[in-house]
Amino acid sequence: MPLEELIHQMGERAKKASQLLRTAGRTKKDTALRLMAKALVHRSAQLLEENQKDLEAARGQGLTGAMVERLTLTEALIQSMAQGLEEVAMLPDPVGEIARIYKRPNGLMVGRMRIPLGVIGFIYESRPNVTVDAAGLCLKSGNAVILKGGSEAINSNMALVRILVEAIEEAGLPGEAVQLIPSTERRAVNLLLELDQHVDLIIPRGGEGLIRFVAENSRIPVLKHYKGVCHVYVDEGADLAMAEEICFNAKVQRPGVCNAMETMLVHEKVAPGFLPPMVERLSEAGVEIRGCPKTLQIVEGVKAAQESDWSEEYLDLILSVKVVASMDEAIGHIETYGSNHTESIITEHYGRAQEFLSRVDSSVVLVNASTRFNDGNQLGLGAEIGISTSKLHAFGPMGLQELTTTKFVVYGQGQIRT
Amino acid sequence: MPLEELIHQMGERAKKASQLLRTAGRTKKDTALRLMAKALVHRSAQLLEENQKDLEAARGQGLTGAMVERLTLTEALIQSMAQGLEEVAMLPDPVGEIARIYKRPNGLMVGRMRIPLGVIGFIYESRPNVTVDAAGLCLKSGNAVILKGGSEAINSNMALVRILVEAIEEAGLPGEAVQLIPSTERRAVNLLLELDQHVDLIIPRGGEGLIRFVAENSRIPVLKHYKGVCHVYVDEGADLAMAEEICFNAKVQRPGVCNAMETMLVHEKVAPGFLPPMVERLSEAGVEIRGCPKTLQIVEGVKAAQESDWSEEYLDLILSVKVVASMDEAIGHIETYGSNHTESIITEHYGRAQEFLSRVDSSVVLVNASTRFNDGNQLGLGAEIGISTSKLHAFGPMGLQELTTTKFVVYGQGQIRT
Repeated sequence: MPLEELIHQMGERAKKASQLLRTAGRTKKDTALRLMAKALVHRSAQLLEENQKDLEAARGQGLTGAMVERLTLTEALIQSMAQGLEEVAMLPDPVGEIARIYKRPNGLMVGRMRIPLGVIGFIYESRPNVTVDAAGLCLKSGNAVILKGGSEAINSNMALVRILVEAIEEAGLPGEAVQLIPSTERRAVNLLLELDQHVDLIIPRGGEGLIRFVAENSRIPVLKHYKGVCHVYVDEGADLAMAEEICFNAKVQRPGVCNAMETMLVHEKVAPGFLPPMVERLSEAGVEIRGCPKTLQIVEGVKAAQESDWSEEYLDLILSVKVVASMDEAIGHIETYGSNHTESIITEHYGRAQEFLSRVDSSVVLVNASTRFNDGNQLGLGAEIGISTSKLHAFGPMGLQELTTTKFVVYGQGQIRT
Repeated sequence: MPLEELIHQMGERAKKASQLLRTAGRTKKDTALRLMAKALVHRSAQLLEENQKDLEAARGQGLTGAMVERLTLTEALIQSMAQGLEEVAMLPDPVGEIARIYKRPNGLMVGRMRIPLGVIGFIYESRPNVTVDAAGLCLKSGNAVILKGGSEAINSNMALVRILVEAIEEAGLPGEAVQLIPSTERRAVNLLLELDQHVDLIIPRGGEGLIRFVAENSRIPVLKHYKGVCHVYVDEGADLAMAEEICFNAKVQRPGVCNAMETMLVHEKVAPGFLPPMVERLSEAGVEIRGCPKTLQIVEGVKAAQESDWSEEYLDLILSVKVVASMDEAIGHIETYGSNHTESIITEHYGRAQEFLSRVDSSVVLVNASTRFNDGNQLGLGAEIGISTSKLHAFGPMGLQELTTTKFVVYGQGQIRT
């Protein structure tokens, strides 16, 4: 079958499945999630075998060690994917919830009922565990999903989806709820992005290149997950011991993720006391510092930052440091170079804490806490499908609720409009 | 200046204005709204003069009477636009609201703060009062707006915006918060749709052609406001007197709007008793009935409905009627021919009322009330900027809250991630 026709049919089947899923009860959905978890563990030998094919191909194509590592499935990873599905089963079902019903002067009772979005198109790169996470979150929130994984993981992903679909059908739900595009062609992405009759939302997850490509070529609404150039601003009113712990954690605990700190902004009043021990500790942990001219005056032996450093997402043990004269300058820097992802202020000053929270235009803004908390689990949403840096519909980590919308429900007793 | 450059500059100015508006307090915004209202009334003579130019041009181009009527400003209409602005000033400011703050196990206090979207592109057709409504709602919600009105209203709209901008500046807010594209070229719409660097959301309001054009040509997210093919389903358990009042109201009270009933679905058990007096009453009010074969058997002298009738938005005194064997058949019909806009069930049966509310996938679903209540004012949102039939971000009437999003705010005491 030509790819055009195949993907069009997948869209139609997903739409039909979504109509059944929309009204599926929690018991059936949770049963499916638990059967999915069991099946993954039960058939791990088969999964590892299929994964082996991808790994061999990857080595043949000369993929880097890091890329091969991301692609690799292990018994432990399969256990943890299964565990993830069990956790999603334990989360409350968002569908059908009405947070509040209010009465209008004419007696109409008006509420908003949470409902699934419909069909999600999810486009991602190498890690096969993302396949399982996305399938679980979409199913629980009552949405059908069409997955387009990285071409290098095609055998692993096809095996995973085959197993998940059997479990979904065993639970009495439509197997077409989770479909994987069985093609490694880039063209498949374009074809998916044209299914505006059948797909309600596209979520891309991966490098900036992928996300830009999707955003520019989609006829369907896209929730973008761009880079995180996250800042910590150490205010003049900071508890410097706390500032040191938080900055160290934000940079070093896991430098390769989007909520790690990339630039540290330090008020000039505290910079002379704060920067030398901070830079020493970071350097000992292997962090390369790139400083503004004032930083270089305060700490010896630091490399000078280039203009391009301020907008760089290093995803590595590198940190740019800028000394600022005021919180205004710090916020101005964030507005110019930031990515609306995550920013934190360290301060004991009440007014500046509140002002920073209100003025900084990022998906997560924190006071006296590490940027690493921008994460669905950490903020109490349960599992997340990604972190949106688009403002529309969802801004920040997206959990089950963000995969739904609301419709108005109105209880009347014969009201007419006059 | 070439149109490309002009519209690009408008985008940049709107973005700058939105950064100031984002943190503008309620007092300033409400002062601006009240000054805008006063200025419109104070300068009504000038407005009527400019409107006269549009009316003369319209007559010269042979516009229909209805179109000329929509275009016409009167003293009374200007008063009512001013009144609308006063009402928006009285609505609570959505910006800065945090509905709930919860504590995580590590002590982090997490909430979601409501914030403006940024810059709205609003594309609409003839009525000049929409210019004022949109400006008021965007300003109050802290958003800058770029307006593209109908070409036939260009003089009226330019005069309106000139007056509004002066009032906004008098209140100490940036006049670039409200800009009108001073061009009647269709190309201006395309140029606006390309400003994805500066515009966060496009809202088109008008006929189906305009909305489709915008949706297909925009690089910016679009909240669509498609047609309303609204249904009332008269269940076998309906109170037939109530059903008659509601159906009459839904069809006749204002047939030319998107929440008027276009198709009436009647359960076969009650059709013989319900349809003859209902059809008689509707016919007396000038409504043309187009019935399914079963309807024709029950009521004499009714025209036969064609297949195309079931998906038609008449916006007129025409009603299609179908007799169904069950609620399942009614919901199936709505899924096939409906527009996810507004549907109502008339029933005294508890289970079917709840099932209809849960299964019908429309922006507003009602029990025992007229479809005419799908309206921001009627549902308690205050004024509305339109009715979204897209599910993403907002589904149903859009008021001030729907012109905002939320960011996470996190109050910590030194928490780091382990």
